[in-house]
Amino acid sequence: MKYHRIPDETIRRMPKYLRALGWLQQQGYATISSQQLAGQLHLKSPQIRKDLSYFGAFGTRGIGYPVEKTASQIRQILKLDSPQKAVLVGAGRLGTALAEYRGFEMLGFEIAAIFDKSPEKIGKRVGALVIEDARFLHRIQDRQIRLAILAVPAEAAQECADVLVDAGIKGILNLSPLAIDVPRSVKVISIDLAVELGVLPYYV
Amino acid sequence: MKYHRIPDETIRRMPKYLRALGWLQQQGYATISSQQLAGQLHLKSPQIRKDLSYFGAFGTRGIGYPVEKTASQIRQILKLDSPQKAVLVGAGRLGTALAEYRGFEMLGFEIAAIFDKSPEKIGKRVGALVIEDARFLHRIQDRQIRLAILAVPAEAAQECADVLVDAGIKGILNLSPLAIDVPRSVKVISIDLAVELGVLPYYV
Repeated sequence: MKYHRIPDETIRRMPKYLRALGWLQQQGYATISSQQLAGQLHLKSPQIRKDLSYFGAFGTRGIGYPVEKTASQIRQILKLDSPQKAVLVGAGRLGTALAEYRGFEMLGFEIAAIFDKSPEKIGKRVGALVIEDARFLHRIQDRQIRLAILAVPAEAAQECADVLVDAGIKGILNLSPLAIDVPRSVKVISIDLAVELGVLPYYV
Repeated sequence: MKYHRIPDETIRRMPKYLRALGWLQQQGYATISSQQLAGQLHLKSPQIRKDLSYFGAFGTRGIGYPVEKTASQIRQILKLDSPQKAVLVGAGRLGTALAEYRGFEMLGFEIAAIFDKSPEKIGKRVGALVIEDARFLHRIQDRQIRLAILAVPAEAAQECADVLVDAGIKGILNLSPLAIDVPRSVKVISIDLAVELGVLPYYV
């Protein structure tokens, strides 16, 4: 199957479907209709049917989509069918919370290492991990890690990104408030929770 | 000035400008060009100039935008010029991290209350706040709080949202993996960090 013809917007919705299907599976659902999925995610059901058809998942009229099989198909297309290791840079409050965030686990991510530059943090435990010295961040190169979560202050973000890129990181979830410059071959998703909240008072 | 003609996409970018300007002010910048701002945010400078012109901020050719004044204009339009109180529901790892997240503070948000339903958490301190019993969430009605951050598990999200809406909450930042149903008069922004990370392996 050729995956590369799937539109970017469809790919962006796929992890949402996966999250919702995982949750529905926990709730004991074996099948789900596109209408139910649409209700859970506030999307339109024709869009969901179209998205899912791109990679060969077809519901049965009157029965719906098999939850487990559809989730497994999405995992395969998103390359989440084998555990994906990520390095977390920044062991501040947000960083340590993310290190143990079950949502990542549910999608097949494993936070495999955590780094910080603060001497008070280095050596401390976060769950099963020990915070490592950010001076040795470049050593992740030898550890089969291709993804990074950047939870450092704005002024440190670019420097960390440079080290990560040199160490072979190919995808970065950037939680700092400024954009980072990386080569075109590296994919960056930037999320600033304050910015997301910042828009609400205008509408209130 | 009539603010309601400003396009939604412009409003969505405004908090980004504010975050970048706040950071630049900390770095000692008094003025900044639209090109510099564009570089910081990975946006195009004509778009920034157009966005800023909507509410009367005009740069001076060769000098740029006054950082402090422009930030103050944006704060005014986003209604962030007076402190905005928000209630945080869910004192799990992500919730407690967010309770003390400086990014919110920088944009003028104050986490004014934090609730959880777990008996082990109720009564404990998070920074200056004491975690309150979620059974009394409806009492925020008397506390001039119009915004909420929802950091509860998926299965609790809708129930909490219903209580919040009944208690007069008008804007919700929803960090749970499922969409929530609210009346049209309530604005919801949904962010799922796992979903954001979930798209990266596909591109790596």
